Amino acid sequence: AANKKLLFLPGDGIGPEVMRQVRRVIDWMDRKRKITFDVSEGLVGGAAIDAYGVPLSDATLAEALAVDAVMLGAVGGPKWDNPTDYTKRPEAGLLALRKELGLFANLRPAVVFDALVDASTLKADVIRGLDILIVRELTGGVYFGEPRGITEIGDGERRGVNTQVYTTSEIRRVARVAFELARKRGNKLCSMEKANVMESGLLWRQEVTRLHQEEFQDVELSHMYADNGAMQLLKNPRQFDVIVTDNLFGDILSDEAAMMTGSLGMLPSASLGAPDANGNRKALYEPVHGSAPDIAGRDLANPCATLLSFAMCLRYSFNLDEEARMIEKSIQTVLGGGMRTADIMAPGMARCSTTVMGDSILREL
Amino acid sequence: AANKKLLFLPGDGIGPEVMRQVRRVIDWMDRKRKITFDVSEGLVGGAAIDAYGVPLSDATLAEALAVDAVMLGAVGGPKWDNPTDYTKRPEAGLLALRKELGLFANLRPAVVFDALVDASTLKADVIRGLDILIVRELTGGVYFGEPRGITEIGDGERRGVNTQVYTTSEIRRVARVAFELARKRGNKLCSMEKANVMESGLLWRQEVTRLHQEEFQDVELSHMYADNGAMQLLKNPRQFDVIVTDNLFGDILSDEAAMMTGSLGMLPSASLGAPDANGNRKALYEPVHGSAPDIAGRDLANPCATLLSFAMCLRYSFNLDEEARMIEKSIQTVLGGGMRTADIMAPGMARCSTTVMGDSILREL
Ligand SMILES: CC(C)[C@H](C(=O)O)[C@@H](O)C(=O)O
Ligand SMILES: CC(C)[C@H](C(=O)O)[C@@H](O)C(=O)O
Repeated sequence: AANKKLLFLPGDGIGPEVMRQVRRVIDWMDRKRKITFDVSEGLVGGAAIDAYGVPLSDATLAEALAVDAVMLGAVGGPKWDNPTDYTKRPEAGLLALRKELGLFANLRPAVVFDALVDASTLKADVIRGLDILIVRELTGGVYFGEPRGITEIGDGERRGVNTQVYTTSEIRRVARVAFELARKRGNKLCSMEKANVMESGLLWRQEVTRLHQEEFQDVELSHMYADNGAMQLLKNPRQFDVIVTDNLFGDILSDEAAMMTGSLGMLPSASLGAPDANGNRKALYEPVHGSAPDIAGRDLANPCATLLSFAMCLRYSFNLDEEARMIEKSIQTVLGGGMRTADIMAPGMARCSTTVMGDSILREL
Repeated sequence: AANKKLLFLPGDGIGPEVMRQVRRVIDWMDRKRKITFDVSEGLVGGAAIDAYGVPLSDATLAEALAVDAVMLGAVGGPKWDNPTDYTKRPEAGLLALRKELGLFANLRPAVVFDALVDASTLKADVIRGLDILIVRELTGGVYFGEPRGITEIGDGERRGVNTQVYTTSEIRRVARVAFELARKRGNKLCSMEKANVMESGLLWRQEVTRLHQEEFQDVELSHMYADNGAMQLLKNPRQFDVIVTDNLFGDILSDEAAMMTGSLGMLPSASLGAPDANGNRKALYEPVHGSAPDIAGRDLANPCATLLSFAMCLRYSFNLDEEARMIEKSIQTVLGGGMRTADIMAPGMARCSTTVMGDSILREL
């Protein structure tokens, strides 16, 4: 069989340095586990704008479509903060990847590591043991809906428009992913929208309910308005198992949940497409954190989120559950031993660089 | 001069019982302060659906348009949870009031009371002394944008659409309210949108920036993506003074901020229209909490949020700053003395009913 094909898109800011630690794990897999990846590398975001004038070149997109999985670092930075031309923004590269690869299901775990329970601004009693999975719809909604744009409407007035749109099948396919994941976890799914105000949210609620009736009656389903969801996450986060929501609410609520854990530098994500005839899905894996331009290039960033994203990659794209667990366990052990990058530093712990964190994790492996 | 005209709309659930405590304060003002209100009362929400078949009758709307200010309790409950006909939902009454009265600026303070600092799920050190004001746009955006609705598109598929739309003047008028309020407070305004993804958000950012340049250069202005805003609120809430944002982001973020304080039952809100030739604004005041059907009619609800909403009413609609402060101070004193309704009960405190909380506050007055 052909080698497993990976495309690396380190991107901007701290992207390259955290991705370097993944390279090391890939070498280890090659040497010690006899699992070989075929890794190509490309540019995305600001780095691609600098090189090609666009945040995602056709060649890079073609490569992304050809591989088994994409590993992404982070995109964006003040250098490219040019808010007037949307197509020339680093984010546009990421949005194009999501859309062109059809990555409609974005999995964002919000997990509190025992060793880091005090890093949260929430009380330890409230978040200890937290393990939520947010499934965010990623290729629809207001992010991609037409019509959109800004128009002059006379008298010096302008009008800005975006369109929130969802169809039955867009809702069903992401809800199906969420139901299936719930079955493998706590068997509870909460769907969030604003059905009390938005018809697109009402359709969402109706379609999720129908799919539940048809195929997933064994899963406990509840519905919540997204504003109440934002509150309930804070009030009692452990009431949730899997949450499914649309692109925009998912953006906000998953960031809220991520920050609740107190360790953004620890959180991975996976974005998955539809399974093909062989059950393979297009997929992209990236840390939840951003490009952190303020600390870029200084060997300060936390590589754990990216390494955990790679663990998700092993699990979801290559069925390498054992190796995924090994990576996850090594990270836990290293944290348990007191190693901390600056973002998760706490009194009494040992502060270390990106590289040294990588060293320690590799040693555990 | 004519008496000050107030319309009471107690609404559903705990609405009537918390509004009853406002009546008592109004009596006190009449007797002790020689300030007399002309109070009329009407139905809204589920109560209006039961009586008239619609959540806001034309007569009630006409009355709301005629008075100086509206005091609202809460709307909604499982009895009227009929998600298929939008016009027959309790929420539709509230949305119609906002729209018809032109209440475009929704002021939602998120304040942590010293006596209640432990009620939050956030660490006391993070939220002690918190005093944020969120200004939410309330009559535009995706709540009211057209086109909207659900349509059949063939093959058993449906399509749900909502439209996010903002114009220059809609953005400027709410931003102006926010800048002016910032001037009276910490002189800092943070504007939140998703300008990196939505053109309506980009217009928002540009117009807020332009107004700042033109009229409010003395106020410190910053911009934040709404997802980052959701995180920063949790990470370091006291970095904020006034936040201005659109209708939908405001719905989510203000609820997040409210829950962060740990005492939803304490938070008031004001919704203001444009000033007329005499500087008077249409206005509606309501607690941030909902109708809480589970405890309705049992004298358990916390009346403080509604009483504090009345204090806002005195301040913003009637320029009765002294009386507003008296109410606020009484509530603080009563809390300091250990009185607690069930929602804010804590070990060592004295649990009391809605009525007894009202008694105590009146005694302080
Ligand atoms: C960078 C930005 C376009 C993106 C989004 O809004 O989806 C980010 O916030 C995310 O959540 O992945
Ligand atoms: C009841 C509902 C329509 C309303 C809203 O979404 O605006 C509520 O959540 C609020 O924040 O006042």
